[in-house]
Amino acid sequence: MKYAPIISKFPHFLHGGDYNPDQWLKHPEAIDEDFRLMDLSGCNTFSIGIFAWTSYEPVEGKFNFDWLDMIMDRLAKKGYNAVLATPSGARPAWMALKYPEVRRVKRDGHREPFHDRHNHCWTSPIYREKVNIINTKLAERYKKHPALGAWHISNEYNGECMCDLCLKSWYGWLEKKYKTLDNLNERWWTYFWSHNYTAWNQIDPRDGCVDALKLDWSRFVTWQCCDFMKHEIAPLKKLTPNAPVTTNMMGFFHGLDYWRVAEVCDVIADDAYPSWYNPDDNSGMGSYISMVHDMHRSMKGGKPFMLMESCPSATNWQQYTRLKRPGVHKREMLQTIAHGADGTMYFQYRKGMGSCEKFHGAVIDHVGHEKTRVFKDVAEIGKIHRKIDAVIGTTVPAEVAVMQDWDSRWALDYSQGPTNANKKYIETFQAFYRPFWNSGVSVDVIESTCSFDKYKVLVLPMLFMIKPGVAERLGKFVSKGGTVIASYLTGIVDENDRCFTGGWPGCGLRKVFGIWNEEIDGITPDDKQQIEAVKGNHLGLKGKFKAHDYCERIHPEGAKVIAVYGKDFYAGEPAVTVNKFGKGRVYYVAARTEDEFLMELTSAVIKESKVKRILPKNLPEGVTAQMRTDGKREFIFVFNFKNRKQKVDLGNEKFIDMLSGKNVKDVLKLEADGSAVLERI
Amino acid sequence: MKYAPIISKFPHFLHGGDYNPDQWLKHPEAIDEDFRLMDLSGCNTFSIGIFAWTSYEPVEGKFNFDWLDMIMDRLAKKGYNAVLATPSGARPAWMALKYPEVRRVKRDGHREPFHDRHNHCWTSPIYREKVNIINTKLAERYKKHPALGAWHISNEYNGECMCDLCLKSWYGWLEKKYKTLDNLNERWWTYFWSHNYTAWNQIDPRDGCVDALKLDWSRFVTWQCCDFMKHEIAPLKKLTPNAPVTTNMMGFFHGLDYWRVAEVCDVIADDAYPSWYNPDDNSGMGSYISMVHDMHRSMKGGKPFMLMESCPSATNWQQYTRLKRPGVHKREMLQTIAHGADGTMYFQYRKGMGSCEKFHGAVIDHVGHEKTRVFKDVAEIGKIHRKIDAVIGTTVPAEVAVMQDWDSRWALDYSQGPTNANKKYIETFQAFYRPFWNSGVSVDVIESTCSFDKYKVLVLPMLFMIKPGVAERLGKFVSKGGTVIASYLTGIVDENDRCFTGGWPGCGLRKVFGIWNEEIDGITPDDKQQIEAVKGNHLGLKGKFKAHDYCERIHPEGAKVIAVYGKDFYAGEPAVTVNKFGKGRVYYVAARTEDEFLMELTSAVIKESKVKRILPKNLPEGVTAQMRTDGKREFIFVFNFKNRKQKVDLGNEKFIDMLSGKNVKDVLKLEADGSAVLERI
Amino acid sequence: MKYAPIISKFPHFLHGGDYNPDQWLKHPEAIDEDFRLMDLSGCNTFSIGIFAWTSYEPVEGKFNFDWLDMIMDRLAKKGYNAVLATPSGARPAWMALKYPEVRRVKRDGHREPFHDRHNHCWTSPIYREKVNIINTKLAERYKKHPALGAWHISNEYNGECMCDLCLKSWYGWLEKKYKTLDNLNERWWTYFWSHNYTAWNQIDPRDGCVDALKLDWSRFVTWQCCDFMKHEIAPLKKLTPNAPVTTNMMGFFHGLDYWRVAEVCDVIADDAYPSWYNPDDNSGMGSYISMVHDMHRSMKGGKPFMLMESCPSATNWQQYTRLKRPGVHKREMLQTIAHGADGTMYFQYRKGMGSCEKFHGAVIDHVGHEKTRVFKDVAEIGKIHRKIDAVIGTTVPAEVAVMQDWDSRWALDYSQGPTNANKKYIETFQAFYRPFWNSGVSVDVIESTCSFDKYKVLVLPMLFMIKPGVAERLGKFVSKGGTVIASYLTGIVDENDRCFTGGWPGCGLRKVFGIWNEEIDGITPDDKQQIEAVKGNHLGLKGKFKAHDYCERIHPEGAKVIAVYGKDFYAGEPAVTVNKFGKGRVYYVAARTEDEFLMELTSAVIKESKVKRILPKNLPEGVTAQMRTDGKREFIFVFNFKNRKQKVDLGNEKFIDMLSGKNVKDVLKLEADGSAVLERI
Repeated sequence: MKYAPIISKFPHFLHGGDYNPDQWLKHPEAIDEDFRLMDLSGCNTFSIGIFAWTSYEPVEGKFNFDWLDMIMDRLAKKGYNAVLATPSGARPAWMALKYPEVRRVKRDGHREPFHDRHNHCWTSPIYREKVNIINTKLAERYKKHPALGAWHISNEYNGECMCDLCLKSWYGWLEKKYKTLDNLNERWWTYFWSHNYTAWNQIDPRDGCVDALKLDWSRFVTWQCCDFMKHEIAPLKKLTPNAPVTTNMMGFFHGLDYWRVAEVCDVIADDAYPSWYNPDDNSGMGSYISMVHDMHRSMKGGKPFMLMESCPSATNWQQYTRLKRPGVHKREMLQTIAHGADGTMYFQYRKGMGSCEKFHGAVIDHVGHEKTRVFKDVAEIGKIHRKIDAVIGTTVPAEVAVMQDWDSRWALDYSQGPTNANKKYIETFQAFYRPFWNSGVSVDVIESTCSFDKYKVLVLPMLFMIKPGVAERLGKFVSKGGTVIASYLTGIVDENDRCFTGGWPGCGLRKVFGIWNEEIDGITPDDKQQIEAVKGNHLGLKGKFKAHDYCERIHPEGAKVIAVYGKDFYAGEPAVTVNKFGKGRVYYVAARTEDEFLMELTSAVIKESKVKRILPKNLPEGVTAQMRTDGKREFIFVFNFKNRKQKVDLGNEKFIDMLSGKNVKDVLKLEADGSAVLERI
Repeated sequence: MKYAPIISKFPHFLHGGDYNPDQWLKHPEAIDEDFRLMDLSGCNTFSIGIFAWTSYEPVEGKFNFDWLDMIMDRLAKKGYNAVLATPSGARPAWMALKYPEVRRVKRDGHREPFHDRHNHCWTSPIYREKVNIINTKLAERYKKHPALGAWHISNEYNGECMCDLCLKSWYGWLEKKYKTLDNLNERWWTYFWSHNYTAWNQIDPRDGCVDALKLDWSRFVTWQCCDFMKHEIAPLKKLTPNAPVTTNMMGFFHGLDYWRVAEVCDVIADDAYPSWYNPDDNSGMGSYISMVHDMHRSMKGGKPFMLMESCPSATNWQQYTRLKRPGVHKREMLQTIAHGADGTMYFQYRKGMGSCEKFHGAVIDHVGHEKTRVFKDVAEIGKIHRKIDAVIGTTVPAEVAVMQDWDSRWALDYSQGPTNANKKYIETFQAFYRPFWNSGVSVDVIESTCSFDKYKVLVLPMLFMIKPGVAERLGKFVSKGGTVIASYLTGIVDENDRCFTGGWPGCGLRKVFGIWNEEIDGITPDDKQQIEAVKGNHLGLKGKFKAHDYCERIHPEGAKVIAVYGKDFYAGEPAVTVNKFGKGRVYYVAARTEDEFLMELTSAVIKESKVKRILPKNLPEGVTAQMRTDGKREFIFVFNFKNRKQKVDLGNEKFIDMLSGKNVKDVLKLEADGSAVLERI
Repeated sequence: MKYAPIISKFPHFLHGGDYNPDQWLKHPEAIDEDFRLMDLSGCNTFSIGIFAWTSYEPVEGKFNFDWLDMIMDRLAKKGYNAVLATPSGARPAWMALKYPEVRRVKRDGHREPFHDRHNHCWTSPIYREKVNIINTKLAERYKKHPALGAWHISNEYNGECMCDLCLKSWYGWLEKKYKTLDNLNERWWTYFWSHNYTAWNQIDPRDGCVDALKLDWSRFVTWQCCDFMKHEIAPLKKLTPNAPVTTNMMGFFHGLDYWRVAEVCDVIADDAYPSWYNPDDNSGMGSYISMVHDMHRSMKGGKPFMLMESCPSATNWQQYTRLKRPGVHKREMLQTIAHGADGTMYFQYRKGMGSCEKFHGAVIDHVGHEKTRVFKDVAEIGKIHRKIDAVIGTTVPAEVAVMQDWDSRWALDYSQGPTNANKKYIETFQAFYRPFWNSGVSVDVIESTCSFDKYKVLVLPMLFMIKPGVAERLGKFVSKGGTVIASYLTGIVDENDRCFTGGWPGCGLRKVFGIWNEEIDGITPDDKQQIEAVKGNHLGLKGKFKAHDYCERIHPEGAKVIAVYGKDFYAGEPAVTVNKFGKGRVYYVAARTEDEFLMELTSAVIKESKVKRILPKNLPEGVTAQMRTDGKREFIFVFNFKNRKQKVDLGNEKFIDMLSGKNVKDVLKLEADGSAVLERI
């Protein structure tokens, strides 16, 4: 089974980037060069007009699309694609000054001045009207244009507004959700510090003491964003029903529940700026970015996504701006494809001369020609894309899912305690993801409301909140033979951030997990704890491992003990357990341990649950293998994140190297920072 | 001599805590459990209604005390006590919205939105009226109720308001204090940066350059708080003249001069949340918290105080939330009693399900039953209380007083220099307190305006400000035979923060101390200094000691040199001196030294001045002994702050262990984190 | 050739300081003492009335100069000088309250309350009128007074105002500079984030994304300051045309382009508060402060400047307040003179009793008498001044100029990247300055628009911006035989902060330098790089040196390679080059190296370019030599910044020690922290 190409008429890898010729209209020779260099760089797709509103509408109601016509026509002539943007990410200064309501109001009650970007009110009827007009104009003008490939809705949506219009919308959203104040007061636990509300407009989102309020505010902001995005899309869908719409997300951005945003998109797109800073070993960053890609693919059930922005060179807004060593750019792009991308794009195609992105890496540098190291790196990707065209439309076959949940993360982050210094939601998530990555096992990254049907193993790193139905579905999953690995801080609060009574893990999971979690110790950094595998545990784990940050005191209620604490007053008490429940098993890790323990535990569980590894033998440290397949052909990507050569044992299996065309067997040799794309034969 | 019990009709230790059944009205089964568990936990006293205003008055002028009636009646039935709160610590949202003046104005000139708690304007006539009404209602309704034990006025008063009403009050307060602007200008030294005021309303409290202004603003805020508190108390005293009033202080909280607040209270109450984080040795925190308790007892001249809030488990708002190891809770509660408490209470009795205190340790955890480690720790305290009932009403017989002075602290903190990075007022105070604690010597913690009559030794750690009369009284104290230990930075400014001219220590102390302090060196962290005891000094001190932060260059004017500097250009110059003045002596420590030096100096002074030690022999490191007595029976508390067993040499004295009932002699064995209560026989 | 004395009638070193008798009017005995102690301290010049506005005009329009009359008369009687201040640095409270427009508006849109100082609106017509009135009054009253030596205009000008009046001025300034919005949009590169402006009043200075805007705002604020200062000076020049005017600058203060401020002054004055904190070696701070002095002398082409403020003891607003060790004050004052000062003054003469400068070191301490270490240090300076009177009016003969440029610094600091964590403009500047200082070579510190005519060597540390004409003038300088040493990050942007296209270093410098700078690596702290001298390089450099922060990848285009990279993927690529261009040479240092490399490179260049060293032999580490001369007599100042004795090899040259009067030859012995003033014979 293969998915259709992102742009249906263009069954190849999308390659190109944000292109802003509107900055260069007084430099026509530069634009001519841009088109000459497209062919040399293998670029074929360009995001256009993202911040071009003032150029389209310099005076209210007077429109001018001359330059865009010119660019679209030239792209069409070459058979290239435009990902045409709606320009709402930055509005003209005249609008900000004439209609103050389009500007956001900050937490301190002040309306912002005109500045920067990404700062429009979510609710303003005037802004929505202006956006509707400009989006309609664009769709009408280019609906039949052969260059139109897809729509890029706004840009990196983010932020919040506290204006009266947004507050009114907030009160209404709450009333619709909770129906009565009595209901809200009980669910939010407001009989606390005299906060039980007696009118909807008393509920100030800036109030810091009601955790459920903060949680719901984040949900409301997500709802506002989606609602605004739907408003942007409506005229486009009417006029260009076949052009897919997307917006560029930002990895695990805290401010928006991207699963909700994903529902509004036809295609998932992401902006990724990994920092490959480590001089010797970048597998930490490598596994992190894999995890991000796995989520974006999982958001549409495995459908290929696109990398909308990445940097071909140094990223100027980061604290350090390390150049990419030889091999790094190639690995970064192939890694994205390995996890399900059918397009890898850059910010930006030509580097601007001024303003705050003037030093951001780009395909064409200030020097203006193709004789730069970075341009050559990009052109190599163009060539590689052509060699692996068969990968287009394939997906990743995962038997394991790691659960990432914005609501759990927000609820945990907005809580005072348990322990404040070391919540580390994303870090913990990565710690539980990485052993699979090290093992060359395909993983989906899902949220708790996704279907569990296709998985053998579910991983729950700090699934702090258990939403309605989730506990039941987990119980069913296990009883049918599935395996769960859950960590400390799982099953603590309900969907309104109220703590479960009756013993943790709550909501019925106490029975499924076979333990009671009595209390959580928040460890200080200078107080190292330890866990020790118990003799004869059924996974055969051995040895002692360091623990830190969290040590829960748990009581087995049916579960068997795999490891115990080795220090402090809870020495000898259980630290890791396994519970047989129906045909399946639940592993519970009550302490935050060093990575080595999770690696050993996960390896054993992979074996026990018969999860497939992509390559037959253990991978060297710093190497991962990922796979895409249409169910018939298997394309295997192997990456070396160490700054030294490595060898991968291929056992008895045989492959073709898709980049060199040569057969490979026995051993795959990887350069420092090297990559390989193999097809299994 | 014995003091009366805090609640006169209840001559036992108060044990219980903040109890908020108003959060649980939709869960009556939980409230039933609360009452069942009171007996099991040995809790008898409950602070009620602290943040219940909206439940009492959900609509302006419509009152409802049904739930409170129910709780008070059930408490009375069991013979338990209510410490009934006035609810001013958090006002209803309707009031905040209808009457903006009740909300504070911040330093930036903005009025705060409705949020959190502890944020009412100190001056607002409307708020004062509303508080008067609700307090009167409560007092009228419960004046004869048998459960009413005491009044808990508001909660943890703090903060400031910059509204026009408060500013007007500030101008008036200044005019009353200084009479004329000419007088204020001279005392505040405003002929500086053109700040000499020509009208009272020019004096903006946000102005950062006039140190005396900042000092007086802190004094004014304290005055406002006390004035507000008196306003709260007035209707209560009228209706319930016999119920004692108190408010819960917060240790050495910087924002209010608690000696002034104490004057408004009948009983002193404190909230204490020590963090026992150190894996091996918590004597640093232990001596700190002893010092806090000693102050609270000293505030009413030795009268027993109560611990209003403490945490039976982990404190969720701290950065780390370590559980209490076995023995720690017992030690913390007994330590409080050892220093003069007749009640030890918790925040809170039952853990709330939601909002920002949902993870704060409580007697009854979310699981809801009594089978938790924490509940058992609490129940043990209930049992211990009954065994040591004889301690009730006794006090601590101190011959040493360490001087803690909010005005000195503020003046030092608000000054630019001498040296800015290392003022460390409280740390210095603790450094001079701790050698007595290590020695098992009872200490009062007083302010400089307290009587010095009953002491043999007075300690002045950075008594930066010398208020009128204090120098004379110190001179008299010494000349009559008393001993003073004074540190660097003593005697620098007058009560208006004006530097003394004519040589430091000023105000006549130069003669009493027998030295002139020429200049103060502010040491950088990488520049270690040293002091060396001089041969044949009359205390017999020996050796070299490290010094840091401060090295004053002093000139003896009659004093004898005990130690000199060992490094830098002042090597050989005096660092520690003693001056014979009348029948007494003044020790002056001109440099901030390592603790070892202060321990040696203090041990020698204890011996020289014949101050009594509670136990006859030196205590092991990490152990302290404290005593309560009615002048006849002596109750001796011994604590081990190390996480290992220790033995205390009892010499030839004999005791009964009040917890086991057994005789003890020769050696007292203490468990890791152990406590003992002995009566001397 | 000799310059005239700063105060023409007083051909001696100015010595004294800020003197605020207006703070002491109620203590007339203190003022009597002040005058007695002037003679003892050798003080002869006093800055008066800096913050005295309220004392002059306590009520609007009612003036009183009684105290100033008295002080001026007493000074005149002794033949001493007043540097009379205009009091605009702090306005009366009544004015701030009556005329809100005189108070600044902050970035958040709020007008400041009355507080502190240095906070008046730059534009306010009312403030300008009030300043004009008070300045006119002062000038009229004292125009013929014999004590009037010079004018001290306001105090330490700084800060910005965002009020409507200032914004209107900003729009007008922009329009005058750019003529059309089209021109501004193109130069500022605003076709970015939809920022191309369509009206002048859309240009909000708080906007953070247009780098050129931030740069121009800093230029505008400088323009405002100069315009305000000219307004202050106008009435003074009219009434006292012969009294020089100055204002006290603050070293390399970031907020104002002091080269523009210098243009408005007759005499340059600086406030310097070096922190001599290092226990062993203060040559880092020593060379820094030399560099500051060299700039202040260079600002008027070599004309002697004055040190308006310095601290004779500990500076209370610094984090640490170390006392000055013996010799340090003498060295600090002589060092200032060595670099061209004809006056060394203090803040302040008598220490105030209260407010935020009460602990700032002063000539007369709180104790009030002359028997302090600090007073003696000051009195010694008075004696030394008399011994070196011949130095007055001489200057420093520099053959080397290091280029410091506020516009380059602002442009670099306001840019995102290249690399953000390690811009270090001033540190880099110092790194390139210091090897000359170590070598005892006189250096001018100029900006890029100064004449290059008199120099043999020009040093360009991160000359990020190349202004119009500068590249041509550099080319000419080199082609005629001059030597340039340029660092990484030179030649990147034009005067509007637009990156040069066509290859860096831009604007024609690529040809002059003989290199193309392809890309800039921003190194992380844990990734150490290295450069290695290539065999047989024409300077004879040898060995390996550490590199960090920046490594540029450069391509020689005619230049020869002196050193290459030793690590990472650019190992073997050029890191340091030299290009012969006409009769001269350009050295380019592409990486930020350890200081040792710059020392070796600079030593070789000094030799090659025949730059004169002040003393014939190499100086010991931590010692510098500086020289003043009138072209005939040569006065050589030698300083030891180590806290240990050192010997300086004098070769065959002979000198007289001006302080002892003795002949010196062969070896000059310096005490720890010692100084010497020699005349060559």
